[in-house]
Amino acid sequence: MEKTTLRTLETPCLMLDADRMGRNVQRLKSHLATLALGLRPHLKTGKSVEVARRVMMSDAGPATVSTLKEAEQFAAAGVRDIIYAVGIAPGKLYRVLALRAAGVDLAVILDSVEQARFVADASREAKTRIPALIEIDCDGHRSGVLPDETERLVEIGRVLHDGRAELRGVLTHAGGSYSARDQASLEQCAEEERAGAVKAAEVLREAGLPCPVVSVGSTPTAHFSRDLSGVTEVRAGVFVFFDLVMAGIGVCTVDDIALSVLTTVIGHQPDKGWILVDAGWMAMSRDRGTAKQEVDQGYGLVCDVHGKPYDDLIVADANQEHGVIALRPGSEGILPDLPIGTRVRILPNHACATGAQYDSYHVVRDGSDVIEAEWPRFGGW
Amino acid sequence: MEKTTLRTLETPCLMLDADRMGRNVQRLKSHLATLALGLRPHLKTGKSVEVARRVMMSDAGPATVSTLKEAEQFAAAGVRDIIYAVGIAPGKLYRVLALRAAGVDLAVILDSVEQARFVADASREAKTRIPALIEIDCDGHRSGVLPDETERLVEIGRVLHDGRAELRGVLTHAGGSYSARDQASLEQCAEEERAGAVKAAEVLREAGLPCPVVSVGSTPTAHFSRDLSGVTEVRAGVFVFFDLVMAGIGVCTVDDIALSVLTTVIGHQPDKGWILVDAGWMAMSRDRGTAKQEVDQGYGLVCDVHGKPYDDLIVADANQEHGVIALRPGSEGILPDLPIGTRVRILPNHACATGAQYDSYHVVRDGSDVIEAEWPRFGGW
Repeated sequence: MEKTTLRTLETPCLMLDADRMGRNVQRLKSHLATLALGLRPHLKTGKSVEVARRVMMSDAGPATVSTLKEAEQFAAAGVRDIIYAVGIAPGKLYRVLALRAAGVDLAVILDSVEQARFVADASREAKTRIPALIEIDCDGHRSGVLPDETERLVEIGRVLHDGRAELRGVLTHAGGSYSARDQASLEQCAEEERAGAVKAAEVLREAGLPCPVVSVGSTPTAHFSRDLSGVTEVRAGVFVFFDLVMAGIGVCTVDDIALSVLTTVIGHQPDKGWILVDAGWMAMSRDRGTAKQEVDQGYGLVCDVHGKPYDDLIVADANQEHGVIALRPGSEGILPDLPIGTRVRILPNHACATGAQYDSYHVVRDGSDVIEAEWPRFGGW
Repeated sequence: MEKTTLRTLETPCLMLDADRMGRNVQRLKSHLATLALGLRPHLKTGKSVEVARRVMMSDAGPATVSTLKEAEQFAAAGVRDIIYAVGIAPGKLYRVLALRAAGVDLAVILDSVEQARFVADASREAKTRIPALIEIDCDGHRSGVLPDETERLVEIGRVLHDGRAELRGVLTHAGGSYSARDQASLEQCAEEERAGAVKAAEVLREAGLPCPVVSVGSTPTAHFSRDLSGVTEVRAGVFVFFDLVMAGIGVCTVDDIALSVLTTVIGHQPDKGWILVDAGWMAMSRDRGTAKQEVDQGYGLVCDVHGKPYDDLIVADANQEHGVIALRPGSEGILPDLPIGTRVRILPNHACATGAQYDSYHVVRDGSDVIEAEWPRFGGW
């Protein structure tokens, strides 16, 4: 059989550079090793067993997921230690219990007494201790209990512990780090994330409650943490692929980005300086995460078929199945000559959002034309 | 077996109100009937055989698609008259030929001599006349030949016609109508769309070339067209479901929107006036199409479980699996009391983008709790 190559793939399709991914994974694991900490990768970015196996510390985990579908899929592939890191809803506990009954150590997170009560009730009813971590709000960006809300923290902890659920610890996510822009502020986000989680753990322990796990992490803070005293594990997701948002924050360079969309030129509007391609927002996602950054990358940065960026060339606009490639506003560069049928690759703003538009990865090596493998990925809930 | 209801569905999930869809389809068909024109619906919005059958003039079509995957899926379901309405790339012609060999009258579109040449070459090689429509640019928003680019139009036409492909006609799409805001400008967009396509058809005919089909359409212009002299068919897609962007343009009301996302409350941040739900941007899509409109609906407008909007309540922000519900900025309304586990429905900015995040529709009737059917939908290329 003829080998599939960058020239024969149907477009648009999702490309994964395995060399870049390998370097990205190694970089974070090495950094955490210097801090004597393990990684509990967030598998929501890859949503792929093949990717998960290359990013986890072992094939059995530990891992973080954002949906119970992910928990179920990864459990079926042998992962045995999972945190479902989105606040638990009562209607979802039956799926948690089913996975636990199948031998998966699946933990939930919560930030209210109300949730703690129904987790405790479900634990007693099912005669099993459902492990729960209390979500801590370290930077005000989303959910969680503030580290100094002592009373609320202890009440949640007691409802879980005394109610025969398992109070496993605390967990926080410094989502605010996504708007940091320099090393000093990234290091500060990392320290605030650590300090918030550790303080909350101390509150629980001082009240006589257990708190074995202190879980922190986001891709920016995981890379810029300098001291993680009191923390027991680090979570991160998008570091496996990186993307233009992460490059804009300064956590990686454009050359580290392992994910791209292969697309074909389908038209030109020379008077406007436009090159039309068959990757629109359906192929790139609607994510415009770099719009608020210093360099707005439109719907993505355009590279040649091997992944080398063209100067100042971006997907300036997108319809459902049309991408409009143009020079960045204000650029004095020259539009490259890309005839109909030419293939280019586009680096995405946000790997999690772009990946979600596809059901497989086409795996390539740096500089190679040959598709080494096709790895399935899944979506849904 | 117990019936699935709004209370028992897993969340987040995609809801389709069949009563609203039926009224939306009837409204456009009735309007076009007064103009003595048929509808060639764009099936990219629904990506579902069940939806397609309820929107097409017959089970065999005609239809418009945005990907060859759609063409293949709908062909397998019996659709026999399809326009693939994205500029053709040479590498895709083998799939076009395969569908034509299977008895599907699949036509392509193009706007360059280069594309016309390879369509003609492929026609001669395959000993079949591939039908092609010339894409006309009626408002400068994307692809196409300007109606007054006489020389280019005629050259493309001749390459197709003399080269033994089939010059089937002209096609245009008034994408610019999406930024219109009042009846007068919408009617003007519709007239410019009609006039551009008809003029281009006349150019071809005057040069002695055939131009049987004059195809126009977008959801706004289809509804606001008052006279379509010279046009032979109308295309529209999102009218089947409508969405907040269309309501913002004034093509429908919020009560016409047939698509919504069912979601569950998973947390609160009372100090900030936030209610957290399990529908983040993965469930809603990253589409923020109303951001540029007079009323910014965030990531969607929040309704009760039966689809009745709460005053001023929107999904103000979103992470991957978290939606942050809050009152619209400046609202003097009161945040409703929605305890953990409460279910609400969210109307989307853009039906095509939100639908794409799901692999099925849960079909309900206005005001009913029972899920009448689950219809599969597909994605990909």
